[in-house]
Amino acid sequence: MKTVSLREVAGLVNGTVEGLVGEHASDIQITGVNTLSAAGDGEISFLSNKRYRDDLPDTGAAAVLLAEHDVVPDHCGVIRVADPYLSFAILQRFFNPQAISSGHRHTSAAIDESAVLADDVDVAANAVIGSGVHIGAASIIGPGCVIESGVRIGKGCLLHANAVVRQGCVLGNDIVLQPGAVIGSDGFGYAWSGSQHLKIPQVGRVVLEDDVEIGANTCIDRGAIGDTVIERGVKLDNQIQVAHNVRIGAYTVMASQVGVSGSTIIGKGCQFGGQVGLAGHLIVGDGVKLAAKSGVMSDLDAGGIYAGAPAMPHRLWLKVSAVMLKLPEIWKNQRK
Amino acid sequence: MKTVSLREVAGLVNGTVEGLVGEHASDIQITGVNTLSAAGDGEISFLSNKRYRDDLPDTGAAAVLLAEHDVVPDHCGVIRVADPYLSFAILQRFFNPQAISSGHRHTSAAIDESAVLADDVDVAANAVIGSGVHIGAASIIGPGCVIESGVRIGKGCLLHANAVVRQGCVLGNDIVLQPGAVIGSDGFGYAWSGSQHLKIPQVGRVVLEDDVEIGANTCIDRGAIGDTVIERGVKLDNQIQVAHNVRIGAYTVMASQVGVSGSTIIGKGCQFGGQVGLAGHLIVGDGVKLAAKSGVMSDLDAGGIYAGAPAMPHRLWLKVSAVMLKLPEIWKNQRK
Amino acid sequence: MKTVSLREVAGLVNGTVEGLVGEHASDIQITGVNTLSAAGDGEISFLSNKRYRDDLPDTGAAAVLLAEHDVVPDHCGVIRVADPYLSFAILQRFFNPQAISSGHRHTSAAIDESAVLADDVDVAANAVIGSGVHIGAASIIGPGCVIESGVRIGKGCLLHANAVVRQGCVLGNDIVLQPGAVIGSDGFGYAWSGSQHLKIPQVGRVVLEDDVEIGANTCIDRGAIGDTVIERGVKLDNQIQVAHNVRIGAYTVMASQVGVSGSTIIGKGCQFGGQVGLAGHLIVGDGVKLAAKSGVMSDLDAGGIYAGAPAMPHRLWLKVSAVMLKLPEIWKNQRK
Repeated sequence: MKTVSLREVAGLVNGTVEGLVGEHASDIQITGVNTLSAAGDGEISFLSNKRYRDDLPDTGAAAVLLAEHDVVPDHCGVIRVADPYLSFAILQRFFNPQAISSGHRHTSAAIDESAVLADDVDVAANAVIGSGVHIGAASIIGPGCVIESGVRIGKGCLLHANAVVRQGCVLGNDIVLQPGAVIGSDGFGYAWSGSQHLKIPQVGRVVLEDDVEIGANTCIDRGAIGDTVIERGVKLDNQIQVAHNVRIGAYTVMASQVGVSGSTIIGKGCQFGGQVGLAGHLIVGDGVKLAAKSGVMSDLDAGGIYAGAPAMPHRLWLKVSAVMLKLPEIWKNQRK
Repeated sequence: MKTVSLREVAGLVNGTVEGLVGEHASDIQITGVNTLSAAGDGEISFLSNKRYRDDLPDTGAAAVLLAEHDVVPDHCGVIRVADPYLSFAILQRFFNPQAISSGHRHTSAAIDESAVLADDVDVAANAVIGSGVHIGAASIIGPGCVIESGVRIGKGCLLHANAVVRQGCVLGNDIVLQPGAVIGSDGFGYAWSGSQHLKIPQVGRVVLEDDVEIGANTCIDRGAIGDTVIERGVKLDNQIQVAHNVRIGAYTVMASQVGVSGSTIIGKGCQFGGQVGLAGHLIVGDGVKLAAKSGVMSDLDAGGIYAGAPAMPHRLWLKVSAVMLKLPEIWKNQRK
Repeated sequence: MKTVSLREVAGLVNGTVEGLVGEHASDIQITGVNTLSAAGDGEISFLSNKRYRDDLPDTGAAAVLLAEHDVVPDHCGVIRVADPYLSFAILQRFFNPQAISSGHRHTSAAIDESAVLADDVDVAANAVIGSGVHIGAASIIGPGCVIESGVRIGKGCLLHANAVVRQGCVLGNDIVLQPGAVIGSDGFGYAWSGSQHLKIPQVGRVVLEDDVEIGANTCIDRGAIGDTVIERGVKLDNQIQVAHNVRIGAYTVMASQVGVSGSTIIGKGCQFGGQVGLAGHLIVGDGVKLAAKSGVMSDLDAGGIYAGAPAMPHRLWLKVSAVMLKLPEIWKNQRK
């Protein structure tokens, strides 16, 4: 367990010590981070969501990360920071560093002799590594993972249990796959022959750029021709479906159960709520925000905020959904 | 194959023999349960959904479980019971008892030497059991399952193929995980650093209390800090997403493809239809019912029935969705 | 790499060579198919979606598959065909033939000695084949797949990584399971005992008829009693949920994240968009089309096109959703 002084903690988050702690900040030892309601001796907490403000007066935390505008409580130390949530993230990463690979290969793993793995790559029990696979330094392949032939995986990747990367797909550096994620499943492509749906071989790949995280049981289909591309820093939650030849712009985040249909191009820095659906062959601009359950059927301009199905500007949707509740009254009035 | 007399069957479900069978009930041998339309000699059937009432006159069943208000048919035996569906469940369990573990460990399973398994625990082929895992008596770990280090699993659990339980999670007694279920995936937590989404280590656990069942490919994320808790007797269908730090109250049931966002607290005895979505940090009271596809954006009082997105009282929703079909007419009338 | 002359390509798709190529069609060698924008020397392309018409004048393709009504460009060869998309599919299948099994059994696969596999069946690393399983000629069982006891799999099937087929289910010929698909998970069936949800053993099977494809992480629950049946030629995309005792008619296709509730019967040749939901015990006629996100709560007549939740005729939905945007105006007008 790491232990550092409160003063050192302030340094880690570029903050200033305030409150009753004063000049004793070098003497107070911090061993971890916790919520306001659960924190105890030696723990630091934070206030970033105003829903939890009532937990502040009674917190047992040794100190609290607070923004400029927050009032300092009487009974504990304070580190004043620009962004308490970011500071919380930095400290949580400090106290809980990522697993480090050691080059361990479990005897039950099936590693093809033609695969090229950096010395320190870990391969856990019952993982399968196909022919011609390349895996970069410090990557960890979890138990039951299947890495098919020709896949290239960069440095510092962490593939959790039972993740699947199909043939020929490319993962950059610092990728995380949560359990059961599927990278490179066949896109949903058929042509009607007159008597049956003729499957179209899906010969493209999936390319995940650096620092992408893919949620549990999320599926990214390979391109029909050409690639499905998830750009740098994208974060996808669980049970998301990304169809063939989609491109998702850098740093876009999507909550769980979103579905993106084929060939749709999504901009950078977008934020989608849960259960959003997008039709195929659309272009969504940079920085678009979609409320949960939105249904997108047309191109969207950069920077817009949308909601509803079919999706409309969020401000309009707020009015529409308020008036919707009055529909019985509207109908009644009109029939008078 | 078990065989019991109709009289014994009546005893199992606390029912009364009626109809043409009369005093011969001890002589009629029952070997199983079937639907009204498919049942044949030696089978007992039931009527619980009125949609299937027309199947009653022609059933080939030896006898039928009927409620007080049902009319007894001429041609077969009847067991009169308070709740035919419950009686059906009891008989189906009687004729199809759960698998019993025998302590078999498949040679291909990778069981860490520090794991502590009760003698009669089964571990199927290619399952992986990590360091420090504890598994209680009569539990069965299916093929390809991954149980990561530090996990505790109680007695009488049944984990189906390729289920994953990540590090440190806790399963009570009599838990069932369907294939591909993921317990303890990382919650979706990031802080924007100014240039990238900084992953926040998810250091909490998932705790499943006794008698919980988790559907195929359903994901329960571990807490960011503190635990995600699924209370006693909860039943979750397939492809459900439960985010970090959610709590689901005892005996709540959810149909497939529901999504629950982070830190939302759901009461006891709730019933959610399929594809429902709930925003984060909400409080949903006990006994709340949500129609399929509801979208919940605010706290809900106990005992309410809701539908629509955004969710509204179900009675209002029935009116709103009826008037919605008249919107073109309303618009036309107003423009006159 | 296969190489054929443009004239032979025309023969494969029953088309006619046109444009500047003329009588040299026998001399032009074709090695593959590509999109209009990416195609280069030796590649043939196609125009089937008018969105991509602007890519035609600048394509680097040696030749293009065009429909009767398309204008022939100056700079490349043309094969005139009835259906360019179907022709594309035929050529893509010609240049990318399916994997052929060789009878290889990886040493790490756990194959029960009572299983009966045709000589040329492949079983990949860490796959598990249970007791009494039958697998027909030319089938391929991917890495990490679990085939439980008593399962019967036909000829020419391709099961991708980590797919699961539970006990006693039946797969016809030429079935494809994408990674993580689950066939035969328990249906969601419980009876309330007064104090808990009593699990009803799900004793039916899943039957997949010939030429069915099941998407990644899609789940098909086994019947409660009797079978869940997916008829010939059905194609299901990723993350679809099919509940117990559903029947899906031949050649029906569903986009990802659709949910079908228990005992619903779906006709032949239907087309469902993504994230559609259907209630239980419904009957949906042949050839029904459902727009994405539809919510179906009642039986639907054959041949209808529906949208919205609750689902309504698509024409009506177009009007309703247009007027919905005017709701604030309608309300304002009425209050005047």
